[in-house]
Amino acid sequence: MILLNQKEQDIASKIKKLKDEAGTHSPSIFTIAEKIPELNIQVDACFLSNPYATELFFTYLKRDLVDSRKMRDVLEFYPSQNSVIAEILSECLNVNSKNIFIGNGAIEIIQAVIHNFTKKKIIVNIPTFSSYYEFVKEGTEIIFNKLEKDENYRLNVQKYLEVVKREKPDTIVIINPNNPDGGYVKYTDIKFLLANLTEVETVIIDESFIHFAYEDETYEMKSATELVKDYPNLIVIKSMSKDFGIAGVRAGYAIMDSKRVAYLLKNGFLWNSGGLAEYFFRLYVQNSFLHEYEKVRIQYIQETQDFFKELNNIPNIQLYPGMANFGLVELKDGSSSTDFVSKLLISHGIYTRNCADKIGLDGQFVRIASRNKEENALIINSIKMCFE
Amino acid sequence: MILLNQKEQDIASKIKKLKDEAGTHSPSIFTIAEKIPELNIQVDACFLSNPYATELFFTYLKRDLVDSRKMRDVLEFYPSQNSVIAEILSECLNVNSKNIFIGNGAIEIIQAVIHNFTKKKIIVNIPTFSSYYEFVKEGTEIIFNKLEKDENYRLNVQKYLEVVKREKPDTIVIINPNNPDGGYVKYTDIKFLLANLTEVETVIIDESFIHFAYEDETYEMKSATELVKDYPNLIVIKSMSKDFGIAGVRAGYAIMDSKRVAYLLKNGFLWNSGGLAEYFFRLYVQNSFLHEYEKVRIQYIQETQDFFKELNNIPNIQLYPGMANFGLVELKDGSSSTDFVSKLLISHGIYTRNCADKIGLDGQFVRIASRNKEENALIINSIKMCFE
Repeated sequence: MILLNQKEQDIASKIKKLKDEAGTHSPSIFTIAEKIPELNIQVDACFLSNPYATELFFTYLKRDLVDSRKMRDVLEFYPSQNSVIAEILSECLNVNSKNIFIGNGAIEIIQAVIHNFTKKKIIVNIPTFSSYYEFVKEGTEIIFNKLEKDENYRLNVQKYLEVVKREKPDTIVIINPNNPDGGYVKYTDIKFLLANLTEVETVIIDESFIHFAYEDETYEMKSATELVKDYPNLIVIKSMSKDFGIAGVRAGYAIMDSKRVAYLLKNGFLWNSGGLAEYFFRLYVQNSFLHEYEKVRIQYIQETQDFFKELNNIPNIQLYPGMANFGLVELKDGSSSTDFVSKLLISHGIYTRNCADKIGLDGQFVRIASRNKEENALIINSIKMCFE
Repeated sequence: MILLNQKEQDIASKIKKLKDEAGTHSPSIFTIAEKIPELNIQVDACFLSNPYATELFFTYLKRDLVDSRKMRDVLEFYPSQNSVIAEILSECLNVNSKNIFIGNGAIEIIQAVIHNFTKKKIIVNIPTFSSYYEFVKEGTEIIFNKLEKDENYRLNVQKYLEVVKREKPDTIVIINPNNPDGGYVKYTDIKFLLANLTEVETVIIDESFIHFAYEDETYEMKSATELVKDYPNLIVIKSMSKDFGIAGVRAGYAIMDSKRVAYLLKNGFLWNSGGLAEYFFRLYVQNSFLHEYEKVRIQYIQETQDFFKELNNIPNIQLYPGMANFGLVELKDGSSSTDFVSKLLISHGIYTRNCADKIGLDGQFVRIASRNKEENALIINSIKMCFE
């Protein structure tokens, strides 16, 4: 069982204080590094991104903006309006631009959608990404649909359908793959749910981690994006921070009924992209970039699966099977997740996500991101050492 | 009188189409350049910024992020949360961090404030920046307080006080200096209004152009920021896009009662800054940067005043006196502002703001930004040639 010495306890209490100040999200690695300079942070395994995609993005950024000195153009002037960027994405996503809403990160879209379209009752599966219930307005009833531990926190499609039919919410949320457990709902099941839930006014499918999921060895991703045509109640939300590893750029989009896009644009999201987000979206639709991205996407999926196998082999912890780029592990030796996360950060410089504040998880849970191959090896070794 | 030939008319109709698509804002220079490649744009005199401050910012950006290869740190990871960036600004603004709200550009703050704090009735002085009435929710009454042409669109403080006392709104908005006329309200008058309007629930003072205003030859700026301590109904909104010329970075802040900041943070603006906005705010509070900025701020004010004198000397137009970094000019020879703006763009590559859509302006008005010395000379010569 992991125990902290006095010095470690002192630092751990500083970490706790920062965490308390950050609410239900983790404090950023910059905040931690600044406020606790005695820490020697090696790996941010709290940060859920494909590092190879980040490298690819920076190769292009260097060529397009730094070497050619065009950075100033991108940062000095006003970026394009929301609808202009939507047009850029339209062909690549095979969706009419009037159905595309651009966000200053997916978090802005989650807030906008919940604030504007959720009315009286929302069903949120737990465990979940906390914003989905935190942003709910006062007076709206939140039904927590508890995913079962003995079903590995997978969404049981048939049971879920029954819950929704019984509760009659106006909004439901499916994160696919789910955060923090990685649980994946297959494309056929998504279609089955949509076909049977046309009476639900707003069906949110958050696909922020869909680039890491696959159903067979072609690694093809199965997005619900194009289903918005058939189901006007569907809203697909997509963060670009995870698959491209560019959280500081703040880029996300959503696909939804055109009337909803028009409504949001009328209510203050006309100009919400930074210059670099616009640059990213223009890059994202280029075939040459997408072709190279596809290679690092598959490489990262494969390495992530290897990482999961290694995590699975460590005694004292249990890995829950998922399709995202992080592993949800449960500590089985009686250690608290808080002590484990503190120890891993203080003694090994590895920052992981303590899930102690996640409702719907019964036990001591930690979420660990897959990073690059070397970092993953470091994470595995450090966890093993923690238990020695 | 300015008349367009057939070719110019064809391009002008394309410009009009883009403008119609962009609503009550101007299409960005990138959108125009992309959609009308036959244009040879030389000067963006629609864009309201200090170009010397932009240069200064890029000198620092190059040193801090490009040369030292730290750009990746800023763009890969999540930027700090709103309240962390507020803490960074606190000392420099001499305001408690709990009174500071960070925005993804001032436009996001305007929307958030109007949506969340305006209730039944708002008074907006016209002409104005259109977002202040566009973002008002359905059911809220908008009273347009018309600034008088024969008073040069200056706010008549005594008359304004009477209007507010009579109308009893819950929200009033003063843009200082005002957009699009540059009308400036002196600090003593702002204090007088605040002292006499404590019954108004929300007093918005938008100081996005305050860095360009001055009351005497010391060029000291007189911000209402510190008055929030004494007047909890006051909200000061500040864009950083104008004074620093970094619209693509998306950075703004507001000072307001701490309960209001807490309320907004609880409702979805926890994480709204991009990595470069956080970099900018960290730079902004450094004494060495501020010292250099102060020099280019004053240089730019002086050149802007020279530009105004030149504008004033052009026959056929009348310049309205203002304290911002743009001149509001009225065409006096019977030309339409649409033809003037088209001619200036098509024949001289100078993009200015047609004010035909600005409510509260009675006549043919164009807003022309002050740029650097060379560009200002080009603007002056081009306008003269338009009238030849």
